[in-house]
Amino acid sequence: MYKIPAEPFPFAFQPEKAALVVIDMQRDFLEPGGFGETLGNDLTPVREIVPTVAALIGLFRKRGWLVAHTREDHLPDLSDCPPAKRDRGSPTLRIGDEGAMGRILVRGEPGAEIVPELAPIAGEIVIDKPGKGMFYATEIGPLLKTHGVTQLVFAGVTTEVCVQTSMREANDRGYECLLIEDATASYFPEFKAATLRMIRAQGAIVGWTVPFATFEQAVQ
Amino acid sequence: MYKIPAEPFPFAFQPEKAALVVIDMQRDFLEPGGFGETLGNDLTPVREIVPTVAALIGLFRKRGWLVAHTREDHLPDLSDCPPAKRDRGSPTLRIGDEGAMGRILVRGEPGAEIVPELAPIAGEIVIDKPGKGMFYATEIGPLLKTHGVTQLVFAGVTTEVCVQTSMREANDRGYECLLIEDATASYFPEFKAATLRMIRAQGAIVGWTVPFATFEQAVQ
Repeated sequence: MYKIPAEPFPFAFQPEKAALVVIDMQRDFLEPGGFGETLGNDLTPVREIVPTVAALIGLFRKRGWLVAHTREDHLPDLSDCPPAKRDRGSPTLRIGDEGAMGRILVRGEPGAEIVPELAPIAGEIVIDKPGKGMFYATEIGPLLKTHGVTQLVFAGVTTEVCVQTSMREANDRGYECLLIEDATASYFPEFKAATLRMIRAQGAIVGWTVPFATFEQAVQ
Repeated sequence: MYKIPAEPFPFAFQPEKAALVVIDMQRDFLEPGGFGETLGNDLTPVREIVPTVAALIGLFRKRGWLVAHTREDHLPDLSDCPPAKRDRGSPTLRIGDEGAMGRILVRGEPGAEIVPELAPIAGEIVIDKPGKGMFYATEIGPLLKTHGVTQLVFAGVTTEVCVQTSMREANDRGYECLLIEDATASYFPEFKAATLRMIRAQGAIVGWTVPFATFEQAVQ
């Protein structure tokens, strides 16, 4: 057990019962020309975290701790994409349309892949999810149970959408959740900051947060 | 169909396919001496919305539209309460302890009941939920499907915790979600404001918001 000096109070990290979950670090959300940029978002904040996420994954790999990755994408026939999700706001490019990196957010297309700097390696869990939350309509719940996981360390994008939704789902299911502050980002820095405050409020009502350097030092 | 002038763009409200969901307007969260207050929260913002929530429920009842209520509570043996939820932060009063209104957040105890001003009536859906989100470990998904519901109008407390978590779950499941701005509240007005902005962002990524008076006028 490592005592992590997290906010709002120390987190008792038990690596043998933990998994790192890296949320949706996909080309379509991070790379120029991808879906995120076509929606009008500035990619700077989400691209900036890549080296920190890489270091976090590297730390887990070096220590032999469990790593999981998620990808938001849909089946090629879009049967798992609610019409309300695809059509909302009449965007110029919709999920399933041909974009700069293949069909947008379709499983197996180049844009749906995780960026090469953070690519999963053999033995790591990789989950495709149709929603923002990682538990809905996926097998991650049973998989984590198989590994005896009760604690989740979170990283990825975007903080207030897929990361927050997945943390809230995990918290309802009894997992203790620790978010690495500088290994997560939003297209909107204001939303990231508010989400960190909401997570820690009322005695860690959703979970804990800590900067990567503090986490890294605490587990030496 | 009624065109609701909501943010970030009009919401095509179809009452025959909709349900009002009133989240966790329970005595333990709203009344002096309850769990919410023992955690150190100021009750003013959550008490202020009661008349508006009552008017919203009254409107749905008058028109014969579906109404659902949720309650966050646990079985008397706490078998559905994760230890991580009960113990976090070592509070002076924990879920299941005897409080001013019976055992805290235990199903059937006075504190777990909905405040009398908003009490459910015969024919309305009432869901007990162990988590912040209303879909996890409850029967509300199948129940809404039975009623042919595809749109949800949200009210209740607290905006950034149980309301937001339930809306995000609903959005992943393909529901179109409309939050009534002055029929929801948080103990922290800053968190309510940020959550409304997050919900509407990126073309209603989670859903729409509208003040009650605007909604009421649009459905005349």
